Amino acid sequence: MRDVLDRIGDKWSVLVIVELASGPRRFRQLQRAIDGISQRMLTLTVRRLERDGLVRRTVYPTVPARVDYRLTETGASLTHLVRALTDWSLQHRTIIAQARQDYDSEHPDHEIR
Amino acid sequence: MRDVLDRIGDKWSVLVIVELASGPRRFRQLQRAIDGISQRMLTLTVRRLERDGLVRRTVYPTVPARVDYRLTETGASLTHLVRALTDWSLQHRTIIAQARQDYDSEHPDHEIR
Repeated sequence: MRDVLDRIGDKWSVLVIVELASGPRRFRQLQRAIDGISQRMLTLTVRRLERDGLVRRTVYPTVPARVDYRLTETGASLTHLVRALTDWSLQHRTIIAQARQDYDSEHPDHEIR
Repeated sequence: MRDVLDRIGDKWSVLVIVELASGPRRFRQLQRAIDGISQRMLTLTVRRLERDGLVRRTVYPTVPARVDYRLTETGASLTHLVRALTDWSLQHRTIIAQARQDYDSEHPDHEIR
């Protein structure tokens, strides 16, 4: 179960799943939609999601070959959860940022990232 | 939002939140409940959760001092989500393990973890 949680919890995986929840996307479209992701990290993220059976990579026999990515049935079953997570994060980011600031001023020497 | 997701997605954080959802726990109780977590990793995990304002650490003025950990209101607002995530993981772990096995036999040379 823990390695499944690792994937669901990975921020890049979550952002790819959120984007694919709106429909199939090509690599470049994903890259544009996910601010700050490098080509290498996106390649790795979609491969892992493909390996987990959450994303399907389709190669179309055109010249040049067209490739797109979409959620599988299993991946789609995650979207409501992933959206709930991102909603919670957005709703609570101010209170969490404040908590971190308070903690840091009360513990000036701590080394927690 | 992404660093919030990082925390929610961290498997150890998730397992600590799940355990604290049942009530306050002392350090040793958490350690026993969470299979495989080292003392150092648990220390780090509860500190991060405390810094995020999701967990409150209480020191009681006894001799020796008693310390326990409990969810804050913000932390408690996460429990239904975290439970939904662990439930999903449990329900899908067989299908995901199978997908990984299929992927690995179709891509014998890949280096994805």
